[in-house]
Amino acid sequence: MRAVDLIQKKKEGKEHTKEEIYFLIENYMQGKIEDYQMSAWLMAVCFRGLSDLETAYLTKSFIDSGDILDFSSISDCIADKHSTGGVGDKVTLVLIPILASLGVYSAKLSGRGLGFTGGTIDKLESIPNFKVELTNEEFYSQIRDVKAAISSQSPNLTPADGKIYALRDVTATVDNKSLIAASVVSKKIASGADSIVLDVKYGSGAFLKTPKEAQELAQLMIKTGNLLNKKIDVVISSMEQPLGYNIGNSLEVIESIEFLKGNCAPDLYEITRELAAKTLINCYITTNKKMAFELVDEVIKNHSALEKFQEIIKAQGGNTNVIKDYSLFNIGKNKMEIKAFKTGFISKLKAIDIAHCAKLLGAGRDKKSDSIDYGAGIVLKKKVADFTKPNETIMELYYNDVEQSKLDEAVRIAQNSFILSDSKPDKLELIYKN
Amino acid sequence: MRAVDLIQKKKEGKEHTKEEIYFLIENYMQGKIEDYQMSAWLMAVCFRGLSDLETAYLTKSFIDSGDILDFSSISDCIADKHSTGGVGDKVTLVLIPILASLGVYSAKLSGRGLGFTGGTIDKLESIPNFKVELTNEEFYSQIRDVKAAISSQSPNLTPADGKIYALRDVTATVDNKSLIAASVVSKKIASGADSIVLDVKYGSGAFLKTPKEAQELAQLMIKTGNLLNKKIDVVISSMEQPLGYNIGNSLEVIESIEFLKGNCAPDLYEITRELAAKTLINCYITTNKKMAFELVDEVIKNHSALEKFQEIIKAQGGNTNVIKDYSLFNIGKNKMEIKAFKTGFISKLKAIDIAHCAKLLGAGRDKKSDSIDYGAGIVLKKKVADFTKPNETIMELYYNDVEQSKLDEAVRIAQNSFILSDSKPDKLELIYKN
Repeated sequence: MRAVDLIQKKKEGKEHTKEEIYFLIENYMQGKIEDYQMSAWLMAVCFRGLSDLETAYLTKSFIDSGDILDFSSISDCIADKHSTGGVGDKVTLVLIPILASLGVYSAKLSGRGLGFTGGTIDKLESIPNFKVELTNEEFYSQIRDVKAAISSQSPNLTPADGKIYALRDVTATVDNKSLIAASVVSKKIASGADSIVLDVKYGSGAFLKTPKEAQELAQLMIKTGNLLNKKIDVVISSMEQPLGYNIGNSLEVIESIEFLKGNCAPDLYEITRELAAKTLINCYITTNKKMAFELVDEVIKNHSALEKFQEIIKAQGGNTNVIKDYSLFNIGKNKMEIKAFKTGFISKLKAIDIAHCAKLLGAGRDKKSDSIDYGAGIVLKKKVADFTKPNETIMELYYNDVEQSKLDEAVRIAQNSFILSDSKPDKLELIYKN
Repeated sequence: MRAVDLIQKKKEGKEHTKEEIYFLIENYMQGKIEDYQMSAWLMAVCFRGLSDLETAYLTKSFIDSGDILDFSSISDCIADKHSTGGVGDKVTLVLIPILASLGVYSAKLSGRGLGFTGGTIDKLESIPNFKVELTNEEFYSQIRDVKAAISSQSPNLTPADGKIYALRDVTATVDNKSLIAASVVSKKIASGADSIVLDVKYGSGAFLKTPKEAQELAQLMIKTGNLLNKKIDVVISSMEQPLGYNIGNSLEVIESIEFLKGNCAPDLYEITRELAAKTLINCYITTNKKMAFELVDEVIKNHSALEKFQEIIKAQGGNTNVIKDYSLFNIGKNKMEIKAFKTGFISKLKAIDIAHCAKLLGAGRDKKSDSIDYGAGIVLKKKVADFTKPNETIMELYYNDVEQSKLDEAVRIAQNSFILSDSKPDKLELIYKN
């Protein structure tokens, strides 16, 4: 078998065998297949696609390239959740405490964010002293004792995906649904999850633009799970406007704490309980959605989810006083208000532009080595369908030291990120129903 | 400008500017763009294609990456010819002496062969003591004195094409007509040719399978020449059966000598005089095809082309006695005859299979470092449309020391390389007329 022949085969649109996929990945990991051959193959895959079976083989080869975590001595239903990425998406921060307070274990490995805003790990690091790099022993014992731990991803999990993702990033071969599915599903399976629930987002603020694309990716991930004997549930949700009200690391943690205190942004609430319900049913905590929703409401109302979040913070060395005292967070010392220029209803709140604005203020990074300003971000005072009068505040920008040119650009983008219309717009459907 | 954005642009099927093409090639040559990005771009090009203008820019960027030869102090019409590759194609060996004996200068840089049989350089090396590596000074002075020199290609000509070709070879990105056109045309222009005549072959024995594909490539090469202010002529010819009777290095040189003595295989004769005529008209030796054909016939008949070939051999240190004494060549010491099994007309003589057979006998190489047996090869005793009785010889295999398994395979292929039919097949059109 030769790499060049396998590239040619995929270029001609033919289907690889399991042996061929393993040959490519194993030899690539051993340095016997070069980056330039892998990137040519990846580009051919972008044009020709992979079949469901090929996608499953690729996923399995990623899993087999590294360690596979096993928490079966702790629980027979370890839950995991993944989002394909959205603006203001702090679901993980509220979902895990809710689940843990209901007896569901989460072993959450998460990454830092690249692009517009930080990832879950970056957000948690905005809590003073919160330790995100747990040793294997710390991770295991915290899951056992607290029912949840959140750690930056172990380097020896799906290393083939890691190596290939880095290559895809610089060769314009990121946007293929099979490559995305293999990357996401392999990580979830390798990290020992029994219940996997995915939030696949579509819309102008997401990587996938239409519900059809989101459905295709969702179906493929479910199918990939099936072929690898792992049940995967998917929620397809819209990402037209940011999720919740706050965007930026500290600001999103604050919104999450408020959520657990019962002050829930409606959209964040809707999607969180949908994902929670699927997990609770998967893990036999309850048998139907209605009962699951009631359980979620209960642990928010009686603050047991909030207490669980405090327990997680404590276990990972963070300052638990942040729960009561938000001034312990780094919040941008400068605030600028973006105001409405006329009377009207918000008909659009462009998620991508708001994210871009947040990044310019310092909330995101381009390269892994860039630093993030945890205090930078945006608080929305209005969301789609809200009414405003002239000079009412639409959003507040928070920032510390930002170059004037970047700040000017951020303000310009913010001012153009919303559209006012005379009539009340139709309600945005958040959860997509097939 | 970033490489990844240019890859994405091509992946989306958009057209590059001249600056973008130069950015890619120049940075690639400087090591600032990596192989893995170039190979991803090349694969995207295979799927999306390049426009005529992009092809011309790529060609020019190849030319500008290295030296450009200049023979204007010797002649204002240096001729060059290129074939896209065929089995038994020894046209260069007879064309150059014919042209030189008619006053047309050739500065021929040629490569070694990869694949089924040797290249022009390998064939010439089968002449004892023939020196193929000429210094720049030797090359220039021989062209001035003899009107023709044939040398293995200078390493500093179109180095970008060389580097990219090596990458294409291992990433299944060879078969794109723009990449082929840029590679061929850049080399011809950089090597200082004023008259460029190309033989584009199609058919089961060629890289391009249909006349339509050959026409597309031909049109693109002509257009590329136009855009770079260089006139390019093209002959489109069929490669269904091998050209002439002999395949293999020594055997092809012997057939070339016989040709120049007037014993011309009809197909080799037809294509050679077509290419010669175009060149003679380009270089103002004559004004029309009919007169050009007469000139070619004359220098074959009066042996002045044969004498010119002898002069070239002498100038490059080869043993000129080979012209009279073929026993000076290494010819396979073993001969095996492949015979007809029934009465009939040869309806097919599969060029690719015969080439594969010759390679198994030792006439070709897979890697640059493989050695070639100059004595290995095949002599066809029958060609398409010839009549045979049972037990008449169809072809003779010549070989020296060949592993038994390879020999068995070669014989098996040879026995299946021809098809006999009861009725006389239609004549194969050699030169394709638009």
